[in-house]
Order: sequence, then structure tokens, then C-alpha cells
Amino acid sequence: MISDEAKKRWLAKACGISPKINHYEMHPLTIGKVNQSSKSFFGWEYIADSKLEEGPSIAFEKSNEIILDFGEHIVGYFNFDIELIGTSAGGPLRLKFIFGEIPSEIAEPFDPYTGSLSRAWLQDEIITLEHIPQKVTLKRRYAFQYVKIIVEAISFDYQIKFKNIKCDCVTSADPHIEKYLLKTLPTDLQIYDEVSLRTLKNTMFETFEDGPKRDKRLWLGDFALLAGTNYLTFNNIDLVKKCLYLFASQIKDDGRMPACVYTKPAVHTGTEYIVDFAIKFGYFLLEYFEAANDLETVNDLWDAAFRQAEIILDNIDGDGQFINKNDWWIFVDWCPELNKDCALQAIIIFNLKKLIKLGELLNKDNELEILNTAVKKISAYSINKYYDKELGLFISGSERQISWASQIWMTAAEVFDANQSKIILNNLFYTAETVKPVTPFIYHYTLEVLFKCEMKDKALELLQEYWGGMISKGANTFWEVYDSSNPKFSPYGNYLINSYCHSWSSTPAYFFRKYFN
Amino acid sequence: MISDEAKKRWLAKACGISPKINHYEMHPLTIGKVNQSSKSFFGWEYIADSKLEEGPSIAFEKSNEIILDFGEHIVGYFNFDIELIGTSAGGPLRLKFIFGEIPSEIAEPFDPYTGSLSRAWLQDEIITLEHIPQKVTLKRRYAFQYVKIIVEAISFDYQIKFKNIKCDCVTSADPHIEKYLLKTLPTDLQIYDEVSLRTLKNTMFETFEDGPKRDKRLWLGDFALLAGTNYLTFNNIDLVKKCLYLFASQIKDDGRMPACVYTKPAVHTGTEYIVDFAIKFGYFLLEYFEAANDLETVNDLWDAAFRQAEIILDNIDGDGQFINKNDWWIFVDWCPELNKDCALQAIIIFNLKKLIKLGELLNKDNELEILNTAVKKISAYSINKYYDKELGLFISGSERQISWASQIWMTAAEVFDANQSKIILNNLFYTAETVKPVTPFIYHYTLEVLFKCEMKDKALELLQEYWGGMISKGANTFWEVYDSSNPKFSPYGNYLINSYCHSWSSTPAYFFRKYFN
Repeated sequence: MISDEAKKRWLAKACGISPKINHYEMHPLTIGKVNQSSKSFFGWEYIADSKLEEGPSIAFEKSNEIILDFGEHIVGYFNFDIELIGTSAGGPLRLKFIFGEIPSEIAEPFDPYTGSLSRAWLQDEIITLEHIPQKVTLKRRYAFQYVKIIVEAISFDYQIKFKNIKCDCVTSADPHIEKYLLKTLPTDLQIYDEVSLRTLKNTMFETFEDGPKRDKRLWLGDFALLAGTNYLTFNNIDLVKKCLYLFASQIKDDGRMPACVYTKPAVHTGTEYIVDFAIKFGYFLLEYFEAANDLETVNDLWDAAFRQAEIILDNIDGDGQFINKNDWWIFVDWCPELNKDCALQAIIIFNLKKLIKLGELLNKDNELEILNTAVKKISAYSINKYYDKELGLFISGSERQISWASQIWMTAAEVFDANQSKIILNNLFYTAETVKPVTPFIYHYTLEVLFKCEMKDKALELLQEYWGGMISKGANTFWEVYDSSNPKFSPYGNYLINSYCHSWSSTPAYFFRKYFN
Repeated sequence: MISDEAKKRWLAKACGISPKINHYEMHPLTIGKVNQSSKSFFGWEYIADSKLEEGPSIAFEKSNEIILDFGEHIVGYFNFDIELIGTSAGGPLRLKFIFGEIPSEIAEPFDPYTGSLSRAWLQDEIITLEHIPQKVTLKRRYAFQYVKIIVEAISFDYQIKFKNIKCDCVTSADPHIEKYLLKTLPTDLQIYDEVSLRTLKNTMFETFEDGPKRDKRLWLGDFALLAGTNYLTFNNIDLVKKCLYLFASQIKDDGRMPACVYTKPAVHTGTEYIVDFAIKFGYFLLEYFEAANDLETVNDLWDAAFRQAEIILDNIDGDGQFINKNDWWIFVDWCPELNKDCALQAIIIFNLKKLIKLGELLNKDNELEILNTAVKKISAYSINKYYDKELGLFISGSERQISWASQIWMTAAEVFDANQSKIILNNLFYTAETVKPVTPFIYHYTLEVLFKCEMKDKALELLQEYWGGMISKGANTFWEVYDSSNPKFSPYGNYLINSYCHSWSSTPAYFFRKYFN
């Protein structure tokens, strides 16, 4: 059992760490328009009309709306001076701002909204100014490259001018990402690297956040991806440590670790408990130890990690099959047709093996016995149940589905040796009908196993196809979701509410540093 | 000439006076709905569904909007606590607030808006809250009795509760208007008195404001009305003094006093220069002296007042007729069909006579000679030109228009003795086709001459018809505009943007104290 006292202590440790927030200023580079375009992936294209000086001065004498491009994805507090053209403002000014990570958000109306997540994530704001001139800073933090400003109401007796339009950008990474770029890479991959680093930078604040536009919270599932990239680039160890303590501090009374943590207005959890996230906590600790060499912290948090394994092992039946007794959410991927049975078994094996390594490091002999026994049992059962020798592939579900998720997680879990894994991966890529990933999550682990199996060419091919695909479609931060055949795919019923800067997509920089040197 | 140095000195004096702002809390009394109603003057009626406790707690579990009634017109900062029903707010909350002085503002959509003044005066606001619970205070000061709260967006995983809904009300009057009520009045007139005092209270802040919802600035024209009522009730002398200095400090280079003064973001004027407002400044000083016995101030500001007379006399031709050389705006009333020629002559005479009284007090012998000569000439010319002996009425314009404005201002200006004035007034009221006032402005001076001519019954009849008319239609503060035959009349093309608490309508309390004791 995890005691309340332990959780309190962990919370105090988390709250005692305040990652420094770095501020830097960004200015719009051009003023322009967004046009419909069949050449553009999402159907809309920003076209610059003219360049702007730093801290531009823009009069609203002729048109009642403008669109500005800041040149790249940024996160921060939009601010400007509003000046009066005329003697006095006889009536208030009503301004509307629409912020977009991609041009579509500027071009398509947000309402009527039919998505499944709150409409309020969409970044628009209306303000009323009774007194002009004044300095204005919008209160919410926005994530955007484009901003549309609309004069919704003004009085007949004056006009206005915007001056010093800028964004007070924030990050707990080093904002100077150029210092971290891997100059030895081929030129095209240097762009991937830059986009990776910008993505990660724009998701690092008081905690890691999945997306700076939407969700804005610390999710457990992809922590290894972004922490791993962070270790090899900005290396903000304090930030990782704070997040690890936050997760541990929020463990539920039944011992389960929540899938996400909110820090405002006070630290608390959501309602989501995801089995394939919770099982990873030991893996995170192991990687943290390898990066930070901080034995004290991993020792302090061992119980939190082991408790997740205990609970999940309690969901494994006598044969070695996971039975969802605790009403967990099983995530694996956003792909709706994916059968997750086989992949989940693999994810459990993968993470138990990581936890065993951590246990060896900490000499947790009693726990190691339990874990080793479990790994053997679940592995044997899974191979027997899900591996089709004739196909040389893992199948899942009554319809014998062949998915990337099953193959990738089983090879990552090393249920077979590297040679056999290589055969499975080759079989996968030569099979026509497979269920492919829609999130970079599984792409990431695909690359990881490809590099480990020394299939670097295939890894590069996928990197170019998936991350390079986004870049060729105009991304300068990597997206939450990318389906090259379905631009408007969204897990939330509205592609405008997808996040276009998502931390779990930031891992090319990790691969370059781990496998390209 | 008024020197820049004098203006600077006056500005410093104005800024040196900071009327104390009193705060008091008001809570919504009931929750209800607004229905269409043919019985209601404006076509909409608030119907309470249930009473609320102080600082009510209202959950938004079933409906996505509520309407609250604060019981009376108030001005201040709306605030509340927002609480979470559920584990966490998985997405932000988007709330819309609509504030109404009358039920129509809650019931009728503001858009599309076709009025001539800024749409942004209409009191609606949209806010997005990412973190719940939190305390929220809306930034703008609102004037309202009713508020509609709409949940525009929420996440599927929580609901909300409003707690401690209240308004931090502000005024530089004493908020306890009950202390000032004239208990000796008949019961029905006590209601008029209360509504007067509430109207005045809700327009007194750092300066007097014409309306707390719209315009929110210090207008010169109606200053005598509200200052006069203030002297006999709250008697905030500092506030009047500050306003007098503000007006004088903003005199234009050509010597003209602006029609209105803004104090935010810094003291400045509008573009309006109104002849029938500027000529009144001496009258204001005289009344201020009579109330405050502050000879120093009126002496200090004499030049500002005399300069207005000089400029306006420079617009009087050899015969005694005002010729608009300086491109003044001539206001008199909002009535669109009113011919203003005769009334303006009378307003000039009225105010020159007041200035003469002030000059006598201050021994301004040279100036008195100029003023006395002018009054004689303009009076003689005006009687000759505008008075129709056979009708016993003043006529104006080529169509010989008979208006209240002409008769009232000529009798107020005492171009004839009290007996003759009484005959004119009787003729006016027995004439079928007259141009009637639409603002309380002329009604006020009508009452003033009626009381002076000892026609108290007629005065009371008008008081009951005009101010009593508003009360019978549900007013608990007096309106900017009231036309019993045309509920939706607006000088600005949209009756929702009319002010329903307007300082120039607050004078019944003045009459009761001046003529009823």
C-alpha cells in the first residue's frame, strides 16, 4: 500500500521544484491572408501580403480585420499597444482575436462546434476596451503561429492603430534551440531536428504538457518519449523530477496511478486510469536514473512503480492473460479499429522487464522474484496465444487482426531474440493488410525496434514518411495526429481541435542523438 | 484669452480632488425568466421563478443558462466563485454574461446591430476559464438590474456551480439613499424621490457621469440639473468642484469649452462643442457658489465662464440674432423635428442673466456692462422676432413652429414678467399642435418655470405624466429618453443602447426639496 504520508511527502517534493520559466519576445513577420488551396494538406494556405518591421504599427483605417504570421509556432502571452487615431474614443472598442496553430483555425468558423472536447479549447477571445490608448496583454496563454484580429465594434468618431504587437513567449526549455541542433546531420534531417526541438520546447513549462493549445496537462503515457528527448537535448532534469513526484503524489486510494495530473488551481488528477500508462512508471524511473544518476529519487519512488505492477499483475489470470478487473482504460493508440489485446500483453511485458532492471539496481530481491515469475508466465502465454508461426506475425482478437501495435510492442518487449524480431518486422512491412498507427506513439517504438534490430534504412524511411510527411505539409512543430490519407482525421470529431504541437511527436531529435552518432 | 498656464493650474486642481468611492455589496434576489408581454412598455417582462438566498449557490446541472434579478438598478463589478461538480475540468469553461438595465437587453439579441453608437456599449462579455474552482471578477464596470449567464462551452467530464454571486457596487454618493428620502411627501411621490436619488447615486463616481451604462462621461449640458439635485441631497461638493475645474481645464485654444470631458486613460475632451452647453458655465458657478459658499473657486473660474459669453456674443449679429460662425453643435433637445432658433436665443439670454448675477457678486464691472447691453439687445430682438402677440406664444422657423422648448426657455429667461409667462404657459398647454420634448431636460425647465409661476398643479401633473410615467412602466432609475407613445424611440437608432439610468433625469428630488417644503 502507498501511504497517505508518502503521497504527501512526494507532493511536497514536487511542489518544491519550480522549473525556471524563460521569456523571449517574438514579433509578427508578415501581414497577409488565408486562402482556400487544393495544394495545401488542410485546404488552407497563408499568403503574406507584406513584411513587417519589429514591433509593427498597423492602422485599421481601411479594413476591419488583419491576419498576422509570427513565422513559427510559439506559446505565450499576446500583447500590444492600442492607439487612437482621432480626438477621443466616443464609444468602446470591441476586438476579437483568433489564434491558430495552422491556417485552418484562422479560416474556418469555430461555430457551430460539433467536437467531443470543450469548444473553449479553440483559441478565440473577445475583449472590450473603454479607454484608448492602452497597453493590452491577453490573459490566456495562447499557442499559435497565426493571429486574426477583428474589429467587432468601434465608434464613428475614431479609428485605431496597433503598435508593438508581440508575444511574450514562455518555456522551461532553453529558448535558443539553435544551440542544440545536430550540425552533423544531413541537411534535410536538420530540419526534422529543429522541428523536434521546437515541439519539445513549446511543451515545456511548469511541467511537461502534452499540447500547449489543448489539454495543457501532464500525461503519463508519453512521458518516456518527451523525457527521453529532453535528456539528450535541453536536459532539464528538475522538470522531469518534478513530474515524476507529481504522478506518484496523485496515486489513488486503490493504488492506481492516474493517467494525467493537473497543477492548477491546485495539484489534482483527472478521472482517467490507463493500464498501459500506469505500468510504465518504473520504466520512467529507470530512464531518469540513467540520465540523472539520481539514486535517491528512484529509490524514493520505487514503491509507486512497484505498486502499479502489483495491481496489474492482480489483473493477470492463472494463464497469463490480462483481465480488466479494475475498469482501466486501455489506450495503446487512437486508431479506432485496433484490437488491443496482444499489444497490451506486450506493453506489460516490456515495462515489467524495465521494472526488473530498476529493481536489480535497487536490490529489491523479494519484488524481483515476483516480477521475474510474472514476465515468464505472461511471455509464454502471449507467444502461445498471439503468435502465428505460419505468418511469422502476432495476431490479435477473434478476427486475427495484424496490427503494427502488436508486432512493435512484442518486438520492443523482446519476447524473441533480435533475429526473430527482425523477421517479424520484415513480415509486417511486407504484409498488405495491416492496422497502421495514427499517433506518433507507436511510430516512435517502431523506430526504436528498427534501430535496435539494425534496420536503419527502414527506420529512416518511416521517419521520412511520418515526421517528414508533416514537414512537407508545412509543419514547423510536430502534430498530435497525422494520417497522410485523411487530413481531417481527429479522435475528437473536429480536426481544428487537434493539437499541432504535441510533445509525444518530438522524438526524431532523440533518435538522431541516440542512433546517428 | 485663457492662458495655457491657467488651464494647467485648473487641471492640477481638478486632479487634486479625488472623490471617495463608496463600495457596497448587492446580491441577486431571484432567478427567473424574461417573457414577451404585451402589457410591458418595452414588450418584455421579467418573471421570478424563485427567491435566492444571499450569495446564492446555483448549479448548472440541468439548463445551460440562467437569468438573475438584483431587484434594483446597480452599478459595479460583478463577481462570483465558480466551483466544480466532478473530479476535474478536462476542458475549459466558456461563459457569456449579458447585463441589462431593462429586461429587453436580456431578451433581444444585440446582433446584428444597427445603432449609430458603438455596439460595444451593449453589456455582454465572454470569458474562458481554464482552471476551476476560482474566484472571478469581471473587469468592466456594469450597470444593470438583470444578468443572464450562459454556459457557451464546457467539457463532458464536469459540471459547475456558481457561488457567492454578487456585485461590488460603487458610487461617490452615500449609498444609503434611504437616509435622504423626504418622508413628508405623499406616498406616491416618495417613490419618485427614491427613484431620483437612486438615479443620481448611480451616476456619481470619480465625476458625474451622464449614464453608467453608456457614454460614462461628464457632459456639460445637464450639469446644473444633477449638481442642483446633489446640493439638496448627497451634497458632494468636492465632486462638483472637481467637475467644474475639469471643464475649465479643457477649454480649446479658441476659447470654447468642450461639451464633454473624459478622465481615462488621461483627462481629455471629445470633439463636441455645443453652444447651449458652453454658455451655461457661469450659471453652474453661480449655483455652486450658492450651495458651497466658495467664493475663491468661482472667482478663479470666472474667466472661463466669461470667455464662453464673449465667444457666443461674437456670434450675435448686429440685430441680436445668433449666427453659427464657430460651427457649434446646437443641441437643445433630441427631438428631431424641433426648430431650435428661438429656444437657443432664450437659452443665451437665460444664461447671460445668470452670468450677470455672478459678475455682480464678483464686482466685474467692465464685463457686466458688456453683458447687460447684450442681454437687452438679444431680448428685444428675440421678442420682436419670435413672439406672436395674437397667439400669445413664441414661434420658431419659417413654418412658425410652436414648441415647448421655445416657450419654456423664453419664460425661464424671464423676457416677460411672471404674469405674462403664466399666460404663455397656459397658452402652450391649451394648444393642440405643439412640438413636445423627448428628454427630461426641457421637462425639468418646464417644471422650474411652472413652480416659479405658481402653477404647482400643472407642474405636478407633468411630473406625474413624465417621471411617473416611467415609474408606472417599471423604472427604478429614471431613463435618458422617455416617449410614452413610442417605447422604442432612440436618438441612436436602437432602443437597447439608450441609457436607463441617466443623471439628467434625476431632478424630481430637486423639485420636492425646493418647492414642496
